[in-house]
Order: sequence, then C-alpha cells, then structure tokens
Amino acid sequence: MGYAALLARMGQVNDVLNAKSLLAWDARTKMPPGGAETRAKQIATLSVMARDMVVADDTLRALDAAEAEVQHLGADTIERTICAQVRDAVSYHRRIPAALVEARAELGSVGQDIWARARAAGDFAAFAPHLEKTVALNREMAEHIGYEGHPYDALMHRFEPGETVATLTPLFARLREAMLPLLRAISDRPAPRIDFLQRAYHADAQLAFGLKMAERVGYDLERGRLDTTVHPFEVSFTRQDVRITTRVNEHWMPACLFGSLHEAGHALYEQNVDPAYTRTPLATDLVGLYAVGGVSFGAHESQSRLFENHVGRSREFWELNFPEARAAFPEQLRDIDAETFWRAINRVAPGFIRVEADELTYDFHIMLRVDLEAALIDGSLAVKDLPEAWNAKIADYLGLSVPDDRVGVLQDVHWSSGQIGTFCNYTIGNVMAGQLYETAIKDKSIADGLARADYAPLRDWMVAHVHTHGRRYTRDELLVRATGRTLDPEPYIAHLTAKYSEIYGLPNAA
Amino acid sequence: MGYAALLARMGQVNDVLNAKSLLAWDARTKMPPGGAETRAKQIATLSVMARDMVVADDTLRALDAAEAEVQHLGADTIERTICAQVRDAVSYHRRIPAALVEARAELGSVGQDIWARARAAGDFAAFAPHLEKTVALNREMAEHIGYEGHPYDALMHRFEPGETVATLTPLFARLREAMLPLLRAISDRPAPRIDFLQRAYHADAQLAFGLKMAERVGYDLERGRLDTTVHPFEVSFTRQDVRITTRVNEHWMPACLFGSLHEAGHALYEQNVDPAYTRTPLATDLVGLYAVGGVSFGAHESQSRLFENHVGRSREFWELNFPEARAAFPEQLRDIDAETFWRAINRVAPGFIRVEADELTYDFHIMLRVDLEAALIDGSLAVKDLPEAWNAKIADYLGLSVPDDRVGVLQDVHWSSGQIGTFCNYTIGNVMAGQLYETAIKDKSIADGLARADYAPLRDWMVAHVHTHGRRYTRDELLVRATGRTLDPEPYIAHLTAKYSEIYGLPNAA
Repeated sequence: MGYAALLARMGQVNDVLNAKSLLAWDARTKMPPGGAETRAKQIATLSVMARDMVVADDTLRALDAAEAEVQHLGADTIERTICAQVRDAVSYHRRIPAALVEARAELGSVGQDIWARARAAGDFAAFAPHLEKTVALNREMAEHIGYEGHPYDALMHRFEPGETVATLTPLFARLREAMLPLLRAISDRPAPRIDFLQRAYHADAQLAFGLKMAERVGYDLERGRLDTTVHPFEVSFTRQDVRITTRVNEHWMPACLFGSLHEAGHALYEQNVDPAYTRTPLATDLVGLYAVGGVSFGAHESQSRLFENHVGRSREFWELNFPEARAAFPEQLRDIDAETFWRAINRVAPGFIRVEADELTYDFHIMLRVDLEAALIDGSLAVKDLPEAWNAKIADYLGLSVPDDRVGVLQDVHWSSGQIGTFCNYTIGNVMAGQLYETAIKDKSIADGLARADYAPLRDWMVAHVHTHGRRYTRDELLVRATGRTLDPEPYIAHLTAKYSEIYGLPNAA
Repeated sequence: MGYAALLARMGQVNDVLNAKSLLAWDARTKMPPGGAETRAKQIATLSVMARDMVVADDTLRALDAAEAEVQHLGADTIERTICAQVRDAVSYHRRIPAALVEARAELGSVGQDIWARARAAGDFAAFAPHLEKTVALNREMAEHIGYEGHPYDALMHRFEPGETVATLTPLFARLREAMLPLLRAISDRPAPRIDFLQRAYHADAQLAFGLKMAERVGYDLERGRLDTTVHPFEVSFTRQDVRITTRVNEHWMPACLFGSLHEAGHALYEQNVDPAYTRTPLATDLVGLYAVGGVSFGAHESQSRLFENHVGRSREFWELNFPEARAAFPEQLRDIDAETFWRAINRVAPGFIRVEADELTYDFHIMLRVDLEAALIDGSLAVKDLPEAWNAKIADYLGLSVPDDRVGVLQDVHWSSGQIGTFCNYTIGNVMAGQLYETAIKDKSIADGLARADYAPLRDWMVAHVHTHGRRYTRDELLVRATGRTLDPEPYIAHLTAKYSEIYGLPNAA
C-alpha cells in the first residue's frame, strides 16, 4: 500500500465514473424510451459505488500510506497535489452523512416528474413543496459541508470551488453596472435582420456544417463524435473519447451551428488534458464525483464560450468562413453577405428563456438565479415568494413582464434534480473567456492566425495555459499563471461594449 | 440482513453488469477509434467489481441470512431458487483464485492483438505460444472449478451448464450420421441460382427491410434499437432496453436480413423475460457475470436460430412476405419470384469460414471446434498439431482442403480473448430450435398464424414456454416443461432432411 495503490484505486473510481457518464450519454442520445426506469437505477448504483470507494476505509488507509510516502517531496509536485486533492475529497464526502446523500438522490429521482407536470400546467404551487424539501436538504447539506461566510458557498463549492457570495456580489454588481446601460442603449436602436436565419435549413446539412466548424477550431474526431439530443452537452470518457451533442431547429440555423461550436470548446478542454493525468485525480472531480479533466465548471464554460462567442461570433471569423457557410446553404444564404450574417447572429433580444438568451442578456438570467438561490438557502426568501421575486428581477433587468411561470420560475430542470448552487459557472465562464482571450490575442502569432482562419495558434495557447493542466491547479491559480491576475470582468465588459457598439452604432463605439 | 438485502445486492451486481454491457455495446457501435485503450480499462474494472461483489464476505453473510429466512418455503419457490443460484455462483467464483482470473484477463487483453497480427500474416506459429498459455490457464481453471468426467466440462459449464463431453459425444455422432449423407447427396445436385442476391442493394434499404422483418416477428422498438457493427450481436440492459446489431454487405443481401432476424430472435428472449425478474438473479448470469435473462447460451441460440431459420428461411415465410421484399428492392428482385428467392437463401455451399456457413454445414464447424478444444484441454492434442488436426477434419466433414491458416485455425477471435469452451452452444441452439419449433407448430393456432404471416401465436408460445422463465429453470428443465423431453436431435434432423430434400429434389423427399 502506498502512492501507487492510491493511484490504482483512484483509477478505478475514474473508470466507474466514466461508465456512469456513458450511461448518461446513452440515455440522452441513443436509449430507447423504454429503458429510462432501469437506466436510472444503473446510474444510481454507480454513483453510490463511486462515493463508497472514495469514503472506504481502504481508501483512507491507502491515502495515509501515500501521504507518508510522498511527504518528502515538494508541496507543488504532482504526487503531493494528488494526495491533497484526494484528502480534500475524502474529507468532503465523509462530512456528508450517507443518509443525506441518499435522501437528496431520492428527492431528485422523483423531482423531474413533479417538475415536468407542474411546468406543463404552469402551476408553481404544485412544485413548491418539492422545492421546499430541496432547499431544506441543501441547507442541511451546507451545514455538513461547512462554510465561512454564507451557506450557499458550501453548495457552490462542488461546482466552482473558491467562489462565494462574497466574491460574486461585487462581480455581479460590476457586470450590471456596465451591461445594463449597454442593453438600454441597444433597445433604442434598430435591430439587425434575422429573417434569413429562419429559412428552411435541412438537418443533415446543419449537422455537417456544425461539425465542420467544430473541426475547424480543432475538435478531433479520432477521439470524438457528434450526436443530436434535446439539451446539448459535452461529455468525456477520458481524453481519448470526448463527445459532443447538438440540437437542430430547421428554422433557426444558429442553434445547431453555435451549439456545435460551444460544445467543441468544452471538448477541446477535455481532449487536451495532459495524457499523463488520464485516470488520475488530476482528470477526475472526486468532490463532484464526475470524470472530468476541467478544473471547474466555470473554467470549462470559459472554453465553450470562448470558441462559441469570441471566435465563432466574431466579424473576422465570418469574413473568412462565410463562403463555406454559403456553400453549405446555397439557397438559404444566396442573398446574404458575411457582414449581414455576422450582425444577425449577434442580435440582442431580451427574452424569458435562459437557454435561448443572446450573449448580452445571458448573464442577467444567471445573476437572477444565483441571487434567488442564495436567498432561498439563507432563508431571506421563502419558496412561496419566489415567483414574485423572479418576475421582479426579470422586469428590472430585461424590462419584461413574465406572463406565466412556465417561461419564468418553472423553466429550468436544475432544481428538480435536487441540485442548488450550479448556476454561477456560466457567468464565471463568460468572464474568464474574456480574460483569457484578451491575454491570448496579445500574442501576434495568435492574432495573425485568426486573420487567416487558422485557429491552431489560439488553441495551442489554450492547451498550454488551460487544457493541459487538467485539475492540477485551482481555477484562480490557473488564471494567475495564464493572465497574471485572478478573475477580472473588465476584458469581458470591453469585449461586449466594443462588439455591440459596432453592431448597433452606439455613440461610444471605438 | 436477509432475503431483501440479498436481492438489493444482486440488483447492484446486475446494474454493474449492465453498465459493463453498455461499455461493450458502445465500443462496438459508436465509440471513436481513440477510445479503445481506456475503454478496455473501464470494462476490466467493472468486471473485477462485479466479481468482487459476488465473492464479498458481505454477500456471503447476506446469503446465509437469506437462506435461513426462506428455508421454510418450498424448494421450487422463486426465493429458494434465487438463493440456490446465488450459492452456486458464490461457490463457483470462490473456487477460482483471483490471481487466475486476473491472469486470464491479462492474457485476453494482449491476445487479440497477437491473434490479429498472426492471422493477417497467416502465421500460426506466431499465435501458438499465446494459445499454449491460454490452454494451460484454462486447464488450471478447470481443476479449480471441478468436474466429474472431462476437464472440458468445467469450462463449458459457464456457457452451457450441464453439458459435458459425455453428453455431446453421442449428440454429435447422431448429427454427423444424419447430416453427412444429406450433405453428400446435395453435393451431387445442381445448386440454386444466387446471382440476384449479389446485385447492388443499398445499405439504407437493407437496414430498413431487416428492421421491418425483425419487427414483423415481434421485436419491440420501444425497448430496442438497431445499429450496424462488424460482428453482429444482441445485447440487453434489462428487458427494458434490448438492442440488436447487424452488418451490411451491399452485394450480399442475406447478411443484413438474416442477421437482423437472428439477433431479433435473441432479442425476443430478453424482451419477454418476466418483468418481476428484472435486476434479480433470474435475469443475471452470476457465474458468467453477464446481465442476461436467457438460461444458457444454447437456449439463447435456439431463439435466434428459430426465428432466423425455421421462420425466416421457410418457404411459407417468403410466399407471404416476398411482395414486401420486392417492394423494398424493386430493381434487384424485379425478375425473381418467391420460390426462387427461398431456394437461393437456402443454398448449401461448404466453405472454410464458420460465420459464413449455411444452415446445414454450420454444425460441422462447431463439432470440429468442440472436439479440438476438448482434446487440447485433456492434453491428447498439442497446440503445435492443431492446424493439421483442423485441416483433417475440414477435409473429412466438408471435403475441402484448407489452403491457408487464415481461413483455417486462425479464423476465430474466441481463443485470443482467453476463452475456451464457448462453441457448443451454437449446435445446442440448433437442436433446441428444432425441438421447440416441432412442438409449437403442433398447436393449430400457431400453424394457422404462420400461414397468414401472423407470428404472434408462435412468439407467444415461445414467451410462455421459454422467454418468460428467464433463468428460473435449467435449460433441460425448460425443455422438459416445453416439449416433454430433454435435448433430442431428431426434430432438427427431420427439419433439415425435409427442407433440403425439397430444395434439392433428393430421393427421400416427402
């Protein structure tokens, strides 16, 4: 027993978590409808087994022995880092009673159905009792996990370690301060035409073009594949097999195209984690019990948003790649030029639905959810008052009046699964993407690459500064190493301001 | 702890084995090429975990408690049957040292590559050392498992419990006695034309027609799906999700069609196991560590062969369904009638390759392998003498001279994976299919159904007499309950004799 034994054991945990991920991928892409019930049991069993393996006395003994074996090494060596991460995860899971984990899983297993029926009926009262239990269980969870400032911090830890209400509050305030005036200014300006994006685009052609653009930014099909699903996602089973999914709307072509680029960004992260980390804790989230190489959900989202938005929605990208879009869709784009296309795919249109939101309004949907979740968890907001609080924020941020809880508080699946604390990563990802992109393009070879539709230099920078490190450094350590500072919203704000000023002809355009 | 705890634990074993099956299905249908190496580790980990769960002290304690709890019940109750089966499996796995299991898995993991290279080069000597190790390990395995007559019996036990060299010897002798003269007689007769089966059949049309015929005999797509692969197979993840695969040769249309019907026969078995058995040992092979509801590999093969051959290659089937074949392939079958089609798909043509063999010659490929495997295991045949022995039998049975070990002793993948003892089930399946079919069609409603292309009565009989029982009864118990007797080759022989006499105009035609 020692370090090698600990690694072998963690390799098995990684295998089990990858098997669980495959069960989930299959359920969302290939499984016949009849399989749902027993598939849920298979996934539950593998979840329990992975947790059991982490908290097992054998693991603790292997960990003790491994720590003793590697203590003479430097604190920043791979060996010490791995031991510290396993220690953190073991301690995290041992703090949470198994009964509580089971209770939340049980709640999650019935919740989806309750939520689906409540949403279909637009009946928040039918969902409220379930949400109250979910809030109560998560509050209890937070007490076991522990926190210094706010109980919500304990829940975010699993998804975005280090992020807290105290760190998010000023970040969100700064984003609102910069983005709300931009949004108000845009609402007074004429909107770009988007009619041609709603023409009939054949599904096969959309998938082929989406995949082509994913490959263009570097997605490796030798270790990947694209499938269709209802809610697109990326998932990996080690860096050797990293899959993306997308959805096709035959009368809204951006869905498939930017869905593919977004998931390809996630996939690039996983495909480029250091091969030496494969099956180790540096490619396994032992706290979240998820076989992933990315260091946090926010860091992951930075890569999807960077390739979707900073690359894929840039003027330069379409100046260079629009001829291929027209070759793929000769009828639909026959009367459209690159600039018209670029303006259309960047149109800002405040709406009720998060997953349909444009680049500028998306963060408001996130800030709203994070603030409301935190208030539910600290008890300052009661579940019964949630719809009213939701609707007030949508009115405040986006100037919209929610007609119906179906497009309001009942729209997201997340709470039905028993999870609270998952949302902040989307905005963290946007902010990180802005910061990483700004730093990267200071390198002339990267900017030159983008100017000739060569995305390899940009990708290589992301590989070297983000992807390859897997989970070796914390998100903030990674940011400091890559950009010289921790999370900083200014590059993201500058990006949004410059882009939308240009598109909408705002007075502060450069 | 008690019976309920034992069931819960066995449910988890079933979940793990189903996850392992999904990893394997995916590897053979969807996985990108880069995923092979880490996928093998994931499968290996789940295999080890399933075995560990079965031999764990906790399981033994749960089993002891469960046996005490149910001992007052009748010996043929579900509860007593389940306890007895778990006891058998626990005892089986505890007899085999873990080191031996690992050594065989290790041998299997390198063997495929050694075999593939040896086969490509037609170089048996390059494969012989690996095969010698495989034989030695399996011989050692047999000693641990235990046997009464022949060491090969211990190896067959995992795939066809109860079958032994002593039972197979007279069975094979009778088959040879009846089938060799038939084969000789056919070789003197003119062969039916098959040229039109080699026309260009578009892959999509083949898959659609194969799936249509699979559904025609009762395959339920609500709990299933069809994919393409290199070596077709059926696999299930509980009765709720039972998948089939097929391959397409654009210039040999029977491959996809009869492959689909064959796998649909397997799938019918799994889809119709009693729902109450789901996730229990009555739908889990705890000896073979495989999540399957069929009671033996031979019993399973009886259903695939019954729907492929007795139904799908019958004159009546094509008299009724040929119009649909012509609708699916109007160009290719424009000048062909049902009888010509039926004769073509039943042509007998002795060849070197087992997986391409027709209904009459297939069993000779099996008998050859079983006899040679048994001789390798008891030491009466040395590995170095294997090619010569192989070629002699092919000459004896099929009158062919093997030009090259690539189409001889090196053709099958099985030995490379470390397994010996797997082959007999194919011939057992043929024999069982004949016996079950003969009994079923004595029921007038079944015969009437077949005469109007209604396969529900036949299928319902198989459901009631075979499928629904899952692993509750042994294969022979099942046969006695269904047909009044244990394995009996005469109906199969009668079927072959009648069919081929008609097609080839032999003197003993009825």
